[in-house]
Amino acid sequence: MSKIFVFGHQNPDTDAIGAAISFAYLQKELGKDTEAVALGRPNEETQYALDYFEVEAPRIIESVKPETDKVMLVDHNEFQQSASDIAEVSILAVVDHHRIANFETADPLYYRAEPVGCTSTIVLKLYKENNIVVPKPIAGMMLSAIVSDTLLFKSPTCTQEDIDAAKELADIAEVDLEGYGLDLLKAGTNLASRTTFELLDMDAKSFPMGSKNVRIGQVNTVDIDEVMTRQTELETTMQAENAAKGYDLFLFVVTNILTSDSELLAIGSDLDKVEKAFGITLVNNRAALPGVVSRKKQVVPPLTEAFAE
Amino acid sequence: MSKIFVFGHQNPDTDAIGAAISFAYLQKELGKDTEAVALGRPNEETQYALDYFEVEAPRIIESVKPETDKVMLVDHNEFQQSASDIAEVSILAVVDHHRIANFETADPLYYRAEPVGCTSTIVLKLYKENNIVVPKPIAGMMLSAIVSDTLLFKSPTCTQEDIDAAKELADIAEVDLEGYGLDLLKAGTNLASRTTFELLDMDAKSFPMGSKNVRIGQVNTVDIDEVMTRQTELETTMQAENAAKGYDLFLFVVTNILTSDSELLAIGSDLDKVEKAFGITLVNNRAALPGVVSRKKQVVPPLTEAFAE
Repeated sequence: MSKIFVFGHQNPDTDAIGAAISFAYLQKELGKDTEAVALGRPNEETQYALDYFEVEAPRIIESVKPETDKVMLVDHNEFQQSASDIAEVSILAVVDHHRIANFETADPLYYRAEPVGCTSTIVLKLYKENNIVVPKPIAGMMLSAIVSDTLLFKSPTCTQEDIDAAKELADIAEVDLEGYGLDLLKAGTNLASRTTFELLDMDAKSFPMGSKNVRIGQVNTVDIDEVMTRQTELETTMQAENAAKGYDLFLFVVTNILTSDSELLAIGSDLDKVEKAFGITLVNNRAALPGVVSRKKQVVPPLTEAFAE
Repeated sequence: MSKIFVFGHQNPDTDAIGAAISFAYLQKELGKDTEAVALGRPNEETQYALDYFEVEAPRIIESVKPETDKVMLVDHNEFQQSASDIAEVSILAVVDHHRIANFETADPLYYRAEPVGCTSTIVLKLYKENNIVVPKPIAGMMLSAIVSDTLLFKSPTCTQEDIDAAKELADIAEVDLEGYGLDLLKAGTNLASRTTFELLDMDAKSFPMGSKNVRIGQVNTVDIDEVMTRQTELETTMQAENAAKGYDLFLFVVTNILTSDSELLAIGSDLDKVEKAFGITLVNNRAALPGVVSRKKQVVPPLTEAFAE
């Protein structure tokens, strides 16, 4: 039997890497010849966790077929977020917490999805169901994934199951949950070395709203003012991106992970709809969004509604 | 909160009905306002189980939206096998043992698939994980579903988990597994009242193989000779179907559920490929297929290979 690759999505975050490592280990304990791999380099937050728990970063691959034809996916299922040749290999298992779309198999498979805040929360459940002990470094990576995906439980995507899992994993990993969690999140907020374009693009997604094309970028920080010292440069780049890529509106959400608030910078058309969506008044193209941390749950839905009217 | 419909695939078999009833009950115990419904009338085998365990047949629906916008699916996921307006409602959960294809959601959901012989085997696991007691009539329906899907454990799709689940459910349902199982399967083999076209069409599926279009029908029986007394009539109808629907080849598999053997009747082109696929010689358009019971695992794969050469 050939080796089975286990991996998360492209542009991997801490859950994509952490769930791959932990699910690959679980499957190995259950007798499968698995290897955790990744579809990209760990980001700074993930690298902090890997270093802290002395775990080796998974080997980076782009395609699967040169080495194997069997895979297990974590933290994603949509083919456009996966390996380039995902449609040509056999998917044995998926563990995920996203919607299902653009996904298809030829054969029956193991598929475990639950609407929780983090894939690693589900992976912990699988360890228990199979009576497999979670080793300390793996508990550390799973804990890091939950802290990352839930912004230390402050995201509205977080469930009680995520909180309970994180507490249990912090005990195994022998770390102080709050202290380690904040250190981890801060490690991902080192934005000073990034170019303005990188800040805008690193996590940006495009959303069709009504007849308009809206681009929404987001960064996490512990100091919103530090990011906003670049406001003029950010606006120039956002204007250039709108012109070059055909975006009608570019929104940049700068989220303070310590206070769970965000600052919005908006450049483009339909600014009245932006104001209406959030009940704000833009001053100097900016406005505070108190309590907003989740693009998926708190930014896209009210905007979509405002553009539909 | 509006009611949640729980249902299996169109042309429901015993697992589609049994898993809908058992999963709807489980979810109700967990606090959800569910109703088991069905996308068609129970077949004779399923009706036997419903009568035996004094369970009411689920109400039949065709579309969902007139009554609710929330559903849970069992024993299927592909939209073309589901309710007519499935793409327009919210799918909260899926429990299934098939491949995933033509399936998509807008939001994260609960999805539980495992490559076992029967959906009800997975549902039993969910009762245990949630510490919910299986009532006797529901155990009877789940047991019937496993017997049906695995042909009383003789199908190559059957796993040890299916066998263990069936034994446990037979204890709860207070029936003799072998005795009740055979009675159930026999109840589904009452073919005398069916027209020849119904026999050929009741479970038939089309498969593209190489450049050819192959139609494969299958019936279960306890007396192959009884079905084959209609050979001339069957051949005439198969020829007419080939001409009318553009099938290159029509295969009819008559499976003896007592001996786990089948008899093949083949009408159309490429009969040499059929002979090669199964290592047989057709005499009077017929051949025995000893040990063959599963179209999915034992008929389609060797044929696909023979047509690919």
